[in-house]
Amino acid sequence: MAVVTIHEVGLRDGLQIEEQVVPSERKLDWIARLARAGVPVIQVGSFVHPQRVPQMADTDSLFRRLADLPRVPGVAYSALVLNERGLERGLACGVEYFCMGASASDTHSRKNTGMAASEAADRITAMGRRAAEAGRRVQVSVQSAFGCGFEGRVPAARVLDLVRRFVDAGLRSVSLADTAGHADPAQVESLVASVRAIDDGLALTCHFHDTYGLGLANAYAALRAGVTTFESAFGGLGGCPFTAVAAGNVCTEDLVHMFQRMGLCGGVDAEAVAEVARDAAAFFGRALPGVVHRTGPIPERGTAEGAH
Amino acid sequence: MAVVTIHEVGLRDGLQIEEQVVPSERKLDWIARLARAGVPVIQVGSFVHPQRVPQMADTDSLFRRLADLPRVPGVAYSALVLNERGLERGLACGVEYFCMGASASDTHSRKNTGMAASEAADRITAMGRRAAEAGRRVQVSVQSAFGCGFEGRVPAARVLDLVRRFVDAGLRSVSLADTAGHADPAQVESLVASVRAIDDGLALTCHFHDTYGLGLANAYAALRAGVTTFESAFGGLGGCPFTAVAAGNVCTEDLVHMFQRMGLCGGVDAEAVAEVARDAAAFFGRALPGVVHRTGPIPERGTAEGAH
Repeated sequence: MAVVTIHEVGLRDGLQIEEQVVPSERKLDWIARLARAGVPVIQVGSFVHPQRVPQMADTDSLFRRLADLPRVPGVAYSALVLNERGLERGLACGVEYFCMGASASDTHSRKNTGMAASEAADRITAMGRRAAEAGRRVQVSVQSAFGCGFEGRVPAARVLDLVRRFVDAGLRSVSLADTAGHADPAQVESLVASVRAIDDGLALTCHFHDTYGLGLANAYAALRAGVTTFESAFGGLGGCPFTAVAAGNVCTEDLVHMFQRMGLCGGVDAEAVAEVARDAAAFFGRALPGVVHRTGPIPERGTAEGAH
Repeated sequence: MAVVTIHEVGLRDGLQIEEQVVPSERKLDWIARLARAGVPVIQVGSFVHPQRVPQMADTDSLFRRLADLPRVPGVAYSALVLNERGLERGLACGVEYFCMGASASDTHSRKNTGMAASEAADRITAMGRRAAEAGRRVQVSVQSAFGCGFEGRVPAARVLDLVRRFVDAGLRSVSLADTAGHADPAQVESLVASVRAIDDGLALTCHFHDTYGLGLANAYAALRAGVTTFESAFGGLGGCPFTAVAAGNVCTEDLVHMFQRMGLCGGVDAEAVAEVARDAAAFFGRALPGVVHRTGPIPERGTAEGAH
């Protein structure tokens, strides 16, 4: 049976777009609870300019404080880095697992980094090598791998080109990120198969957003195509709260719940993750997009009322 | 390329649980718009006791009025019948396509019909034969095929037993209904394969509810397993508006949108269905669970703002 791994990104991809900054104490509480819930990889934050993204300003101090806490066996803490300066900050505060990415969309790349996609990919590859040489775990991602809000469809060839560059540089843990939520399940199966054809031994992760309601369908398609690591956010955080549909990242507890119905992902306590989601909903004072933190899981034995 | 068929059940499975009764004129408008949108099968209502389910009290008159309107080529109108009396009413007002079902769960069957599952199946089989002998199109469904709110897990053997009874009676259009929303994608693939092993020539439909957020993932799994007809409701109607998560039937326009991204289901105008969903949301005065009637479709070409 496949072992499915969750890389929890709610504290980074979820919180970075919230107007309200979450205090460090609460972040540490959520991290501790997610770790106890059996989530194997938890992204703590990103090393960006603290004035540009105040939600992430405490990332260095969070890593220092985590290093002082008792280690939870089997749990790794990751950070996102966007540039060399962020990487140096991460190395300085003891980050063991670095995530970094380049976009398959030129427009998205220029808007985000000021660089063309190809130049950004070179830079990320060099950063990935630097982190690996420093003995750290590295994951490189292809952003906008399934479509782009600026460009629409993104040709698979551009994604495969980036993956080849990463692999040629010896970076063999790769994430395909559906930044805009444009992926559909057939496309996921097809793209994953093409990526695996480059190097079937890659450690492959998928990162989906539920913008158009396709998050879980895409995750199932990815699983079917052989992906076993998924980036997701508790509560489905990550959606812009000001749009008509606030759907964000694929919701961790919904994803775990789906996998567990299928006999996978047994090591994570979905209810404990749902509890963190409920806490976050209370903190932000609004309903979050996830489902099972409100419904509870599908009952194994049924209930007197039938609940349908 | 597989041709995917939508059987729109919003006017029946969606409206039957709404407190507010939809006037016949508005139903006819929705039906006409769905027909013009290219939805090939539209369920108009069910023949139940008008005092018990006042939302469906106008079903006979709707069929009579539809018969007076110009036919939309390629569109069929179906009705759900629960018992012999309903069947006779349907035959009397000219219904050409009858849907009827029996539950795979004994408790669900007793609560709904007062009969054990086996007895209800016999009765439905006899009704199906009667409708077929009257020259009408017939679909028989297995309700609670993937789980039951009262009983929890439903053994696949019980579903297969019902399907065999239908097939033995010559009823070869079968729907597997996830009445409680308990299905998961792996279960869907497995159960569909088992049903197809009974008779690979069956016309097989799946009917999913999005109660736990798994509707589209299950639909994709069913498609992968060879199912090409899906019952769904515009706007995702069918959820109880009074529960924490109001998710109902899988949403027609979301389903069509997903399939169209995959190059399927090209004959349906998803935006026209979404327009009906928006009209229904305005009528009921609340947000409906569907997504793309609020977001619009995934942009093919992207937008200046990027929208992510």
